[in-house]
Amino acid sequence: MRTVIECVPNVSEGRDRERVEEIAEAVRRAPGVRLLGVSSDASHNRSVFTFLGDAAAVRAGVEALFEAAVPRIDLTRHEGEHPRMGAVDVVPFIPIRGASVEDCVSLSRDVGAAIAARHGIPVYLYEDSATSEARRNLAEIRKGEFEGFAEKMKDPKWAPDFGPAAPHPTAGVVAVGARPPLIAYNVNLGTKDLKVADSIAKSIRHISGGFRFVKAMGVELADRGQVQVSINMTNFKKTPLHRVFECVRSEAARYGVQIVGSEIVGLTPAEALFLAAEHYLRLEGFSSDQVLEMRLLEE
Amino acid sequence: MRTVIECVPNVSEGRDRERVEEIAEAVRRAPGVRLLGVSSDASHNRSVFTFLGDAAAVRAGVEALFEAAVPRIDLTRHEGEHPRMGAVDVVPFIPIRGASVEDCVSLSRDVGAAIAARHGIPVYLYEDSATSEARRNLAEIRKGEFEGFAEKMKDPKWAPDFGPAAPHPTAGVVAVGARPPLIAYNVNLGTKDLKVADSIAKSIRHISGGFRFVKAMGVELADRGQVQVSINMTNFKKTPLHRVFECVRSEAARYGVQIVGSEIVGLTPAEALFLAAEHYLRLEGFSSDQVLEMRLLEE
Repeated sequence: MRTVIECVPNVSEGRDRERVEEIAEAVRRAPGVRLLGVSSDASHNRSVFTFLGDAAAVRAGVEALFEAAVPRIDLTRHEGEHPRMGAVDVVPFIPIRGASVEDCVSLSRDVGAAIAARHGIPVYLYEDSATSEARRNLAEIRKGEFEGFAEKMKDPKWAPDFGPAAPHPTAGVVAVGARPPLIAYNVNLGTKDLKVADSIAKSIRHISGGFRFVKAMGVELADRGQVQVSINMTNFKKTPLHRVFECVRSEAARYGVQIVGSEIVGLTPAEALFLAAEHYLRLEGFSSDQVLEMRLLEE
Repeated sequence: MRTVIECVPNVSEGRDRERVEEIAEAVRRAPGVRLLGVSSDASHNRSVFTFLGDAAAVRAGVEALFEAAVPRIDLTRHEGEHPRMGAVDVVPFIPIRGASVEDCVSLSRDVGAAIAARHGIPVYLYEDSATSEARRNLAEIRKGEFEGFAEKMKDPKWAPDFGPAAPHPTAGVVAVGARPPLIAYNVNLGTKDLKVADSIAKSIRHISGGFRFVKAMGVELADRGQVQVSINMTNFKKTPLHRVFECVRSEAARYGVQIVGSEIVGLTPAEALFLAAEHYLRLEGFSSDQVLEMRLLEE
């Protein structure tokens, strides 16, 4: 597979296992799609589907997902802790290999237009696909949630990028967009003092003066008697893991605290790890084409 | 591809491009084989073929290679700087993914027996496939080279593992075996003093008291005004890159010398780099199943 795009749609059903499995089966059957996993959260009443493929395959996967989800999910009866605005709430396309963010932006536009035409669902392009800065942030788009959208859309500022000027009666609206891979990365500290983790989180996160592509907060790990800097790395190519790790190390040392370990939660592109190896081993002229397994993916 | 085995046969023809290409084409046509590259050396008069596949595919690739090479290469007319004993000189099987060294030992026996039966070529099992310690080392087997083998094989100690008790008249004998992946890894030092590189090489290599799976020597890089510790990592799982890198760093510091950089020459399994990232980032509970691209290879 020369081109690998990841798609991680969030669907507003996390309690009815049978329905979730029917949607998963529809995705699995889409040609060229590799469904890696489905993660359901009952309190959120929401499921996250993770699948891979080239552009045509992930498009087919998303279309199959909508075909299965729209008739099965009625947002007028949906409740859960997680904010939501659509039966299929958000569809991110993520370039992994042989595709750029721009390729994924173009894909998100094509898929958004097709979904709007097929199902009459208003589509908002978000993140790198956004048509205005106000639509870049998913939380801004979702404000008001399903119940508030009929009212929200009366404001011309919130006219959708594709589809009708009112939400679908049961399926609401959907955000579709391209974004870089996100890595959930945590650094565990040898202290119980949450203030240390909070202070380090503050020093590394973008919003308070840290790295451009880092979101972070301090978290208590009561069972381990430790605290954690819990991090979302939103662009590991521009803000790599090792740079954040070393910054946490340096800030922690200021409190006499050591890094106990770090962890990658869930999936990561290989390149994030190659970049760390390159940095620490001071590799010269390294290319991922030198990695046997990457060569196997070329065709 | 769930199972990935690498095969890197060395063939005694490195000057006649057409012949080398005919052999390469035969390998390419073998079902399931991915030929990554062919590297020919005219002064050695020798070519190295690198291909991947599951057990059945690499077996088919080796059989195709012999079919093409045996009628095309006549060792009675072969000259070159590299020692050689066969038209196909050596066939190593290397486990990359989903296969163990033991799987490759078993494969090497099957392939060795088949080649002996089909072509009447004596086969010696070497490295991890060796049937005695004396046959583990390829250089020991090859001693005497093609011209000396008729005499050498009169000694019952050198009876082949498969095939006739005398060399094939034009194709000689072949060594077939399993070994772990080998990584060619160099560390470049910020000094012109070859003695420093030699001394560090001595401190890290197995033969003189260093790491079990390291071969190393000092090399001058005249064009860079630097010296290099040139390393063969013969088992990166048991002696990982980062451990050797850190040992070189520490030894170099003793001379007031810094590491300028390091380089991986040619191919490496992804795991060698993942291990370095795991070490330096102190990753807890990491598995290569978390790497998107590795998941793609699963099927």
